[in-house]
Amino acid sequence: MTRDDFPHFLRIETRWMDNDVYGHVNNATYYSFFDTAVNKHLLDAKVLDLEGSPAFGVVVETGCKYMKSIAFPDVIHAGMRVTKLGNSSVRYELALFRNDEPDASAEGWFVHVYVDRAMRRPVRIPDEVRAALAPLRR
Amino acid sequence: MTRDDFPHFLRIETRWMDNDVYGHVNNATYYSFFDTAVNKHLLDAKVLDLEGSPAFGVVVETGCKYMKSIAFPDVIHAGMRVTKLGNSSVRYELALFRNDEPDASAEGWFVHVYVDRAMRRPVRIPDEVRAALAPLRR
Amino acid sequence: MTRDDFPHFLRIETRWMDNDVYGHVNNATYYSFFDTAVNKHLLDAKVLDLEGSPAFGVVVETGCKYMKSIAFPDVIHAGMRVTKLGNSSVRYELALFRNDEPDASAEGWFVHVYVDRAMRRPVRIPDEVRAALAPLRR
Amino acid sequence: MTRDDFPHFLRIETRWMDNDVYGHVNNATYYSFFDTAVNKHLLDAKVLDLEGSPAFGVVVETGCKYMKSIAFPDVIHAGMRVTKLGNSSVRYELALFRNDEPDASAEGWFVHVYVDRAMRRPVRIPDEVRAALAPLRR
Repeated sequence: MTRDDFPHFLRIETRWMDNDVYGHVNNATYYSFFDTAVNKHLLDAKVLDLEGSPAFGVVVETGCKYMKSIAFPDVIHAGMRVTKLGNSSVRYELALFRNDEPDASAEGWFVHVYVDRAMRRPVRIPDEVRAALAPLRR
Repeated sequence: MTRDDFPHFLRIETRWMDNDVYGHVNNATYYSFFDTAVNKHLLDAKVLDLEGSPAFGVVVETGCKYMKSIAFPDVIHAGMRVTKLGNSSVRYELALFRNDEPDASAEGWFVHVYVDRAMRRPVRIPDEVRAALAPLRR
Repeated sequence: MTRDDFPHFLRIETRWMDNDVYGHVNNATYYSFFDTAVNKHLLDAKVLDLEGSPAFGVVVETGCKYMKSIAFPDVIHAGMRVTKLGNSSVRYELALFRNDEPDASAEGWFVHVYVDRAMRRPVRIPDEVRAALAPLRR
Repeated sequence: MTRDDFPHFLRIETRWMDNDVYGHVNNATYYSFFDTAVNKHLLDAKVLDLEGSPAFGVVVETGCKYMKSIAFPDVIHAGMRVTKLGNSSVRYELALFRNDEPDASAEGWFVHVYVDRAMRRPVRIPDEVRAALAPLRR
């Protein structure tokens, strides 16, 4: 995938601790980039209030393919798009681009199911969340 | 999946920091459980020497399905098995069991491709690694 | 310090991700061991309810001296004691013992100030917390 | 402390995972900001080569005072200065400034002792490292 495949990007700075003994960002840390990108978009769009939202997304599935390594102090540009927007679930696809590289170093997916805060049962994705996700649809 | 589906387990203690704002272990942290389980097995079998092994596994793909939440201070029992053992790649399947529960809280996969340390090009998985993985085959 | 200096211990398993590029547990991760030990003690004593406690401790100061390195897959035994118990603050001293070693690999401190959940202003440490800390006093 | 107390800053983006159950950046994570700031400075100055430097700093002491909370998605500006530069050790003082705030949210320290790569025994801090630290002296 290339940057043209994504309508939205988040800049993420790597950290010293992200590198593991092999001198590259650890595989688990990629997922912290994914949920940072997704949640930052929702917070910026003001459709996620950590303490107050009556409904919010819980992660039900994630995955990642690692093509090229990333290492601190690289800067990451996380591209994101929404490829499925159902009644209660939304599927994000993300790719991580290293510094100025045109090709993705990693590609992943991230599925949220919306639940109500009290009972944590699936609910319809709120309209304001749908509006915030519309520009990401591909 | 249940515990009977796995020939090998690693006990993992959760940590305070594992919980995110929703009071549950963050989705990215599950992957740190997976790579801890895989690498601990290889270290215990003495087929992984972090500084000296001429060939070692790099992670090329991971994924996870989250069925039930886990939270600090839960104790996790990570089941693992090898479902594919190719020339240079090995696929691990893992499941996380919370405390004494019989059903998995999460199921994941983790694919290693073996590379040589110097050039990081794919190589055949060493025989001693194959021997260490044999008891995990399912 | 030696193990005799501590009335209480928590066993903590290291993880693959704890190691940094130098092949040792990263300095920041030691603090995750400290807050895991402190909070686990409070949870086990049933004086900390993550969602319901009207008062809880916020961390106002921490520190650590690193004497010997620790590396995955070492097992850590975190010793803890309370050296000051004031009106609203409590000072924990902790030491990390590697596997079966008698001498500490690291020594640290951790100061909690209790605040009320709503306003986050200092309050007197609740009596049940004081009772839970009494066996740790040195 | 205020921003005027520091000659050098590093911008650090917070991440979703940095927040703990209380909705604020976890106390241990502050130390990952400290070592990211220190190592980023050394890498930018080209006096740290993760695989090749014959001598490098190992962390022997760290500490932090937490004055005001920080939370994702805050942006942190990490101020740093060197207050002691001895034969083999260097003491960094750091402060974390939240978004556009003039006063520090946290203040910390971080002591490196330089060791040779092979034996990990203390050595004199290399001249090129001293040159890179000179602009940070206060």
